[in-house]
Amino acid sequence: MKIAVDAMGSDAYPHPDVEGSVLAAREYGVEIVLVGNREVVEPELAKHQAASLPISVFHASQIIEMNEHPAAAVRSKRDASMVVAMQMLKRGEVDAFVSAGNSGGCLASAIFYLGRIKGVERPALSSIFPTRSGHCFLLDIGANTDCKPLYLQQFAIMGSVYAERALGVAKPRVAIVSNGEEEDKGSILVQETVPLLKTSGLNFVGNVEGKDIPAGLADVIVTDGFTGNVIVKLSEGAAKLILGIIKEEIKARPLATVGAALAKGAFAQVAKRLDYREYGGGILLGVDGVVIVGHGRSDAVAIKNAIGVARKAVDSNVLPAIRESIAAHLTTPTQE
Amino acid sequence: MKIAVDAMGSDAYPHPDVEGSVLAAREYGVEIVLVGNREVVEPELAKHQAASLPISVFHASQIIEMNEHPAAAVRSKRDASMVVAMQMLKRGEVDAFVSAGNSGGCLASAIFYLGRIKGVERPALSSIFPTRSGHCFLLDIGANTDCKPLYLQQFAIMGSVYAERALGVAKPRVAIVSNGEEEDKGSILVQETVPLLKTSGLNFVGNVEGKDIPAGLADVIVTDGFTGNVIVKLSEGAAKLILGIIKEEIKARPLATVGAALAKGAFAQVAKRLDYREYGGGILLGVDGVVIVGHGRSDAVAIKNAIGVARKAVDSNVLPAIRESIAAHLTTPTQE
Repeated sequence: MKIAVDAMGSDAYPHPDVEGSVLAAREYGVEIVLVGNREVVEPELAKHQAASLPISVFHASQIIEMNEHPAAAVRSKRDASMVVAMQMLKRGEVDAFVSAGNSGGCLASAIFYLGRIKGVERPALSSIFPTRSGHCFLLDIGANTDCKPLYLQQFAIMGSVYAERALGVAKPRVAIVSNGEEEDKGSILVQETVPLLKTSGLNFVGNVEGKDIPAGLADVIVTDGFTGNVIVKLSEGAAKLILGIIKEEIKARPLATVGAALAKGAFAQVAKRLDYREYGGGILLGVDGVVIVGHGRSDAVAIKNAIGVARKAVDSNVLPAIRESIAAHLTTPTQE
Repeated sequence: MKIAVDAMGSDAYPHPDVEGSVLAAREYGVEIVLVGNREVVEPELAKHQAASLPISVFHASQIIEMNEHPAAAVRSKRDASMVVAMQMLKRGEVDAFVSAGNSGGCLASAIFYLGRIKGVERPALSSIFPTRSGHCFLLDIGANTDCKPLYLQQFAIMGSVYAERALGVAKPRVAIVSNGEEEDKGSILVQETVPLLKTSGLNFVGNVEGKDIPAGLADVIVTDGFTGNVIVKLSEGAAKLILGIIKEEIKARPLATVGAALAKGAFAQVAKRLDYREYGGGILLGVDGVVIVGHGRSDAVAIKNAIGVARKAVDSNVLPAIRESIAAHLTTPTQE
């Protein structure tokens, strides 16, 4: 298996991107193509004892920065690392692409160069989300700010296939985010989507409220990209708030400070369980290729894990399975 | 000052509602009218040494339960505690009303019996939300699932008046929830609302992402009732998840368990800072009366604090100030 990695992706590129690739090549035995400016990437790669590893560098002279307008940047920067990598993926030279760069840029270049899977209305960005019992799969987290019911239905179909294949969840429980568990609650969008979810042949378990998401009441949770983005970022912010308050209150008390030192191992494990880096990145579902979008703040471990996510998606044949499910759904019209 | 309290409001009524009222009468010196079934409320009140306190009972034979359809229940149960209390408030027999009951029922009965403030399109439910530096004021958290830009503009105007008067924030920083800080981000609703917020004479500081809310980047945060509901409930769920994981990891380690015992005081203070009960309840803004809606899971302390919120709203003349601001805004059309 050969995976292209955006060497100029993360906020601190190329260091985490290159180191993460080295770790992944070593741990997973996958072949890596680092896509980026050769003059920057090669010296970075030389810092690691990676000569025996299956890592090559593919030159791309430009970078799409985090603050650039995605579509405009993708159009004007034909030699940007993510644009070049998407074309390699399209040509079949690699099996997947991993980038911690501008997520809008990834989305735009994936749509432009890979195209959508036949029948898919809108691709969705996704995230693995920690819960009490493990994790859940949330989409869309930002690709489509305003959605139609059909988009959400397709997110549910694609998410269910992904959870079953790549995350190993049998008969994934699919839910939609709402402002109440009751069926008569929900925005117009939610109320119009629920009937579609009920008749999609999915294991649809109904509406979930905000509090049900971390509680782990569902395996696949669909929502529009606006709400999904608020959910992901608020969770990040809430964790930071809570851990910050804990630190503050402990620091204010000498005895508690001693206590916290004794509980250091427990806190490290808590941080690990809540850490986005454990999940590495979210798959971009609906485009015709395996693309994993990582967090801009990714470090080497996060990049390595994102490459692991890509590997799992390729290994489990997620893409052909999604193609089939969407095609089957198009030929079997929803019964209402 | 005389405050009506729904004696049949909380999930565990009448115990927390009555005890909270006793605590409030004692601590704040306010007069309380407990509205509810006399046969239930009077024996409950008798359990407290409250004979010398200014607490009376006003009979209402019916209850709107948590699972009832709000509008239908308000229409059919004319002698429900919250319906009776709203009418007392309308007649000017009390200065404010506090209920931890069915929030949809409170909203429906407030709109029906108190009416909206002149010019207000839609009333909004609100919540005080803990942040790194203190708290912020969030609305709408569920009254209006689908919103129009004008609603959000009015939420911002009312929220700003409330924060300034009742929460003592000078020149409150007003923000709107979006899926990115950049001005070109946001749903259609957000993009159409931003120009209205810019020209409303508010201290509008722009778009905030999910992570900026707990970070305390704004004092008044407006959003539609769907997103606001998800924010409030997800925060609750995230806190529960994180504190649950911490407990789990500490319990798994004997040394950490000793450490946590030493840090007990710190954890108690953390819980207090994150506890919704500290804020008691959120004001229902836009109806022509001071109505505070508490959490169904309120205990006596939460009820007492909700009564405190009502007292502050009355004391600081929030209602006439909102009437004025809305009226001023209606006569000064938005410059665009």
